[in-house]
Amino acid sequence: MFTNLDTRLMLRAIQLAKRGCFTTAPNPNVGCVIANGDKILGEGFHYRAGEPHAEVFALKQAGARAKGATAYVTLEPCSHYGRTPPCAEALIKSGVSRVICAMVDPNPLVAGRGVEMLQKAGVDVQVGLLKEEAQAINKAFIKQMKTKMPYVELKLASSLDGKTALANGESKWITGPYARADVQRHRAQAGAILSTSATVIADDPSLNVRWSELGTQIQDEYPQADVRQPIRVIIDSQNRLTPAYQLFHLPGETILVRAEIGNEDWPDSVSQWIIPTRENSQQLDLTLLMRKLAENGINHIWVEAGAGLAGGLLEAQLVDCLILYQAPKLMGADSRSLMNLSPLTAMDQVIDLNITDIRMVDCDVKITATVKRC
Amino acid sequence: MFTNLDTRLMLRAIQLAKRGCFTTAPNPNVGCVIANGDKILGEGFHYRAGEPHAEVFALKQAGARAKGATAYVTLEPCSHYGRTPPCAEALIKSGVSRVICAMVDPNPLVAGRGVEMLQKAGVDVQVGLLKEEAQAINKAFIKQMKTKMPYVELKLASSLDGKTALANGESKWITGPYARADVQRHRAQAGAILSTSATVIADDPSLNVRWSELGTQIQDEYPQADVRQPIRVIIDSQNRLTPAYQLFHLPGETILVRAEIGNEDWPDSVSQWIIPTRENSQQLDLTLLMRKLAENGINHIWVEAGAGLAGGLLEAQLVDCLILYQAPKLMGADSRSLMNLSPLTAMDQVIDLNITDIRMVDCDVKITATVKRC
Repeated sequence: MFTNLDTRLMLRAIQLAKRGCFTTAPNPNVGCVIANGDKILGEGFHYRAGEPHAEVFALKQAGARAKGATAYVTLEPCSHYGRTPPCAEALIKSGVSRVICAMVDPNPLVAGRGVEMLQKAGVDVQVGLLKEEAQAINKAFIKQMKTKMPYVELKLASSLDGKTALANGESKWITGPYARADVQRHRAQAGAILSTSATVIADDPSLNVRWSELGTQIQDEYPQADVRQPIRVIIDSQNRLTPAYQLFHLPGETILVRAEIGNEDWPDSVSQWIIPTRENSQQLDLTLLMRKLAENGINHIWVEAGAGLAGGLLEAQLVDCLILYQAPKLMGADSRSLMNLSPLTAMDQVIDLNITDIRMVDCDVKITATVKRC
Repeated sequence: MFTNLDTRLMLRAIQLAKRGCFTTAPNPNVGCVIANGDKILGEGFHYRAGEPHAEVFALKQAGARAKGATAYVTLEPCSHYGRTPPCAEALIKSGVSRVICAMVDPNPLVAGRGVEMLQKAGVDVQVGLLKEEAQAINKAFIKQMKTKMPYVELKLASSLDGKTALANGESKWITGPYARADVQRHRAQAGAILSTSATVIADDPSLNVRWSELGTQIQDEYPQADVRQPIRVIIDSQNRLTPAYQLFHLPGETILVRAEIGNEDWPDSVSQWIIPTRENSQQLDLTLLMRKLAENGINHIWVEAGAGLAGGLLEAQLVDCLILYQAPKLMGADSRSLMNLSPLTAMDQVIDLNITDIRMVDCDVKITATVKRC
């Protein structure tokens, strides 16, 4: 059904799609290649919400040569009039005779409509080439579309023996500069960075994307002027924060998540959200918070916080992916542990993970794992 | 100086040497190839102390064809009359015209004597081809020869958050069966397995090599009848152990390390060693113990113990290599930590490691690291 050439051209479309990974949120990453046989006539990718879709760029480049050609698209072309006219219509008008999509639209309300529109116009449509690869670049978008919940990545950093700070709290720079640059690249892809007042009070962090730390490879394709700051979401259940901390004055928005509104004098970029605490608990209802973030168009949450929020999110089964940096150090049992969980009494109560990747980031280990659902 | 062919044949000699890794202790692993150009005339490796050296096997296979050939040996041929006549002499008698050694003998008292003997007889000798690779297969032998101390590998197993057991002590099977089989392969290469009475009392472990768990690849080259049991060395500073535990009745020797002799009725395979405690401490002097083990021909110690001995060995700077298996689990701050260290008050007091290898062993992570010396 699909030839090797088809696969090669769809891979190219996926590569193109990835070039939008820092800018498209909350939109999906999409790439498109228009080709006649092995001759590429046009290429495009979606760069930013409100700007043209991948197909538009590729068709414009191909021009009249698109007639009779094949379009390779990483996501089913849209069929609705949004901020831009539907891409399915543009493909029909261009005269392409064949459209290959890696996957259908994950939104159950519109899935298949773009394919249908193309087929009705007599275009030969095939779906499913490199589907898993295409899903991998839009994990957060797909999850939000299917479940109305955001995709949550929990970042952790510890010594090899699972410690984050000495007993006296000293902790700065456990991992090395390359791991910290890697964190910058993850932050830059997220819709929001989630942290807590405890972290803000302890470290007065920036919790922003610093273009200068992204590395030249990314900088080459992502101009400093385009830097998108993920929304900072800070859980402050006891209203401990004041406008004195630096993050409230950096570019980008901040959402303070509280149990009740505080009357501090916040900059315009700061808003307060009220999220109730869970029954018989001082902890805010994290599931409610996540649902509200998804409702507000935030698909992808990058969590940087301490042992308390990490454990709370895991116990509430809200974490999709765990990214653990381990420094080549041993800090001993007296040091502070990575993860607070409710006391366990049997080994079958531990949190089980699937490790999906291990690699060195300079001298540190980086482990990526998904959480097994009960 | 060395050709690509030389390198290829020395690599072959190193591969051969490795085939003795389960059996030669306390002797080094040595491999030998006799070749004329690219034609291999004889191959051999040292299999077991008291049995012929690698060169003897290779020369026997080559026979009269050795005349004028080149011998590739991973270690400088011996020059002394031990349990076997010196290999340098055998090489001279065979008529080989050239001998390439990867490294000289690490024993400073005899280093260079084999080379000298060969050169005096008119043989062309070259040293240093693939030296690092040759050193890597005899790390323990080399360390013991140079420092009179054993090479110590510390095995640890934990969850990803550095925990070894629940607060209530439950811990069995944190890592999976493939990691446990990997431990068997490490045990099988060691001269001794070091553990403590606490571990024996908690788990009643076997601390032996179980041929059935070594895997078919190793079993094919290592017959069950030849299985060598590393000496079990159990630190029992308060004489808490009795002959009731199973390990005292399994094949192989056991050394009980105590502060004073106990008068329990031990099987013949069990001996007691007295090692004094350190000044102002209840802990046995681990450095003394290690020195005594090396004096007794034990080059390579594989440590399987709890957080106390692990920390004690690291703090005494006795660990060369740390092998950490991490299961894809999170167990929480209340669970037991991997490593007891004296309380630290500044980050520059942590133990720094160099990670030399990371890999997956089925679902578990295996991290190999060396310890940075202060």
